[in-house]
Amino acid sequence: MPISSTPAFLIDGLQYCNWSRHIFEQMRAARMDAVHVTICYHETFRETAGNIATWNRLFEDHADLIMPGRSATDVSAAHESGRTAIFFGLQNCSALEDDIGLVELLYDLGVRFMQLTYNNQSLLASGCYEPVDGGVTRMGKEVIREMNRLGMAIDMSHSGERSTLEAIRHSERPIAITHANPNFWHQAPRNKSDKVLDALRDSGGMLGLSLYPHHLKGGSNCTAADFAAMAKRLADRIGVSHVGIGSDLCQDQPDSVVEWMRSGRWTKEGSAPGCAPKAIFPPQPEWFRDNRDFPGLRGHLRQAGFAAAEADGILGLNWYRFFAKSFEPARPRFTALETV
Amino acid sequence: MPISSTPAFLIDGLQYCNWSRHIFEQMRAARMDAVHVTICYHETFRETAGNIATWNRLFEDHADLIMPGRSATDVSAAHESGRTAIFFGLQNCSALEDDIGLVELLYDLGVRFMQLTYNNQSLLASGCYEPVDGGVTRMGKEVIREMNRLGMAIDMSHSGERSTLEAIRHSERPIAITHANPNFWHQAPRNKSDKVLDALRDSGGMLGLSLYPHHLKGGSNCTAADFAAMAKRLADRIGVSHVGIGSDLCQDQPDSVVEWMRSGRWTKEGSAPGCAPKAIFPPQPEWFRDNRDFPGLRGHLRQAGFAAAEADGILGLNWYRFFAKSFEPARPRFTALETV
Repeated sequence: MPISSTPAFLIDGLQYCNWSRHIFEQMRAARMDAVHVTICYHETFRETAGNIATWNRLFEDHADLIMPGRSATDVSAAHESGRTAIFFGLQNCSALEDDIGLVELLYDLGVRFMQLTYNNQSLLASGCYEPVDGGVTRMGKEVIREMNRLGMAIDMSHSGERSTLEAIRHSERPIAITHANPNFWHQAPRNKSDKVLDALRDSGGMLGLSLYPHHLKGGSNCTAADFAAMAKRLADRIGVSHVGIGSDLCQDQPDSVVEWMRSGRWTKEGSAPGCAPKAIFPPQPEWFRDNRDFPGLRGHLRQAGFAAAEADGILGLNWYRFFAKSFEPARPRFTALETV
Repeated sequence: MPISSTPAFLIDGLQYCNWSRHIFEQMRAARMDAVHVTICYHETFRETAGNIATWNRLFEDHADLIMPGRSATDVSAAHESGRTAIFFGLQNCSALEDDIGLVELLYDLGVRFMQLTYNNQSLLASGCYEPVDGGVTRMGKEVIREMNRLGMAIDMSHSGERSTLEAIRHSERPIAITHANPNFWHQAPRNKSDKVLDALRDSGGMLGLSLYPHHLKGGSNCTAADFAAMAKRLADRIGVSHVGIGSDLCQDQPDSVVEWMRSGRWTKEGSAPGCAPKAIFPPQPEWFRDNRDFPGLRGHLRQAGFAAAEADGILGLNWYRFFAKSFEPARPRFTALETV
C-alpha cells in the first residue's frame, strides 16, 4: 500500500521473550502489528530448524493472535486481521555453519534478519566484545552478497565497529542495527559510536533503540524522559526516518537464558568474560515492562519534541518502510537471465 | 488453467540422476515439463538441507533449462518458459528424524513427495524387504495427517503391502506409488499386487510405471511393446487416469550409489540382504536410456491400443492433475479459524 495511506503501524525491531499465549495477548492488547523475534543465538542449522518448528506450532495454536511475517505486506495483513506478524531473525550466523547455501534455505524458512556476529568473532565478522576486530571476512563478504540477493536484512547490533562500518560499505542494501543505543548517551560496548550512526544514516539504514537496561543510561532506573530526549538528539543527528524501536524485551525468561546468550558453548568459564557482571536479567524500567507499554512511548516522544508523524515513524512506520525495501529479492529468483 | 486447455505436458514421476547440464539439456531436448527428483534416501535433516542447497545452486546455474516446481501452475510456467520444473521428493522419512515439525519445514523448502519408508522398517511404516510388515505406526498416522494438511504427497513405492494399504486408508488425500509396476506382469518385491492397485484406484491415487530394469519383465531386455501392453492391461484394470510414468532413471550414477541406496548406513554387510544380487546399475533397455527417449513412449502406447488422449494422460496429464489436487494445503495455513 502507498505510504500515505498506511496506518500508524506499531513495530518492535527486536524481542526475545519466553513466548506464550500470555505474551501474545499482551501484544494484542498493545495492538502491536509486527515484532522481529530472535530464533537463534548459538544454534546449529538443525537446532535453528527445531526452533522454527516450535514457532510453527505457536502459529497454529495461536492463529487468532499471531501470524508469520515475511514481507511488509504481512504487516498490513496482520493489522487488518487484528494479529501480530512475527518476523524471524538470527542474532548470530551459527545456523549457517560453513555453508553459504544455508542462507537461502533460512530465507525460505522465513528468516528476514541475520546478525553477522553475536558478541564474538564469527566466520563472517567480529563481535563487539572481541579485543581485535578484523572486519568482514572473506566468507562474510560473500554472505552479505547472498543476503542482499535474497532479501535478508543484515543486522550488526552485536558487531564490532570496524565490522559494522565494513558491512555498511559492502552491503548494496541498507542494513539495520535492530537493538542498540548511541554511545553519546550511554557508553557501552553494545552501543554505537557517532561514526557508526552517521554511516548508518548515509546508507539509508535503521537503528532500533533498545530498552534493555544495560543499554540505558541509568540502567533499570533510566527515565522515559531521558530515553525520549536521547531519541530526539539522535534524530536531530541522523534524521528521524532512520530511528525505530528494538526493545530487546526478554520477558519471562529465566536467568539461565542470559548465560546461554553470553556463553553458549564457547566458554567453560561461564558468564562470558567482558560482558556485564552477573548473568541475570536486570529489571526493566517501570515504564517499559512488557508489550503493553509500547504504545505509551508515544507520549514520551511527543513530550521530547517529536511531531505526531515523527512519533509514528519511530514506533513503526520507519521499520515498515525498511521491511518494504529489504525483504524482497533483489531480482526475481529462479528466472533465466535472458527472460527477465 | 482448465484441464481442457492444458497442453499435453510431459511429466516423469521419478528420476534420480547424477544431475548435470548435460542431463538438463537432454530434458529440454525431450521437452520434459516436469520431473520429480529424489533428494534423500537415508539422509538426516541436515544432510537433506545440504542436498536442497545443492539443487538451489543448480537452479541458479542452469536457470535457462530448469526451475523449482512447487505446484501444478509451476508445470505451466515451466512449459511457457521452455524449461523443466523440478519437484523434490524424499524416498524415505529419515530426514524427519523423530520430529513431526520437520514435515512443515521440508514442505516450505519445496518437498512435495515423501515415501513413508524406503526398503526397511522406518519410524512410520514397513518397507517391502522387511519380513514383517506391521503397517503404519503411531507416528506414521500423525505424519500422514500432517502431509495431508500441508500438501505433501504420500509415496509408497518401496513400502510393504500392509503398510501401503493402510496408508491409502488413513490418508484423506490420494496417494502415489511414483515408481513401480504391477506384480501381475513381473513378480518382484518392489512391484505391486492387484489388491494394492485396486485400492490405489478406489482412492484416486496414481501409479508411475517404472523403467528400472529390475522392475521390468525381462529386465534390461524388456521390449517396449511388452511394457506398453502391460500399461494397457493395467489401465483396463484400474482406469487409465491413474497411470503415469515414474521412470526411476538413474543416469550417469556410479555403482557406489546403488550401494548407498540399498545399504545406507544401516548394515555392515553391504549390498543389502534380500535385494537384487549385485550392487550395480543394470543397463537400461535400449528404448529408454535417457530423457530423450521419453516422448518416444507415446508411439509404443498408441500401438498397444491407447487413444491419443489416453497416451497424453499417461505421459504427463495424469500427473499434472494429481499435482493440482495434491500440493496445495488442505486449508489456508496460518489463518485464524474464525476468520476462514
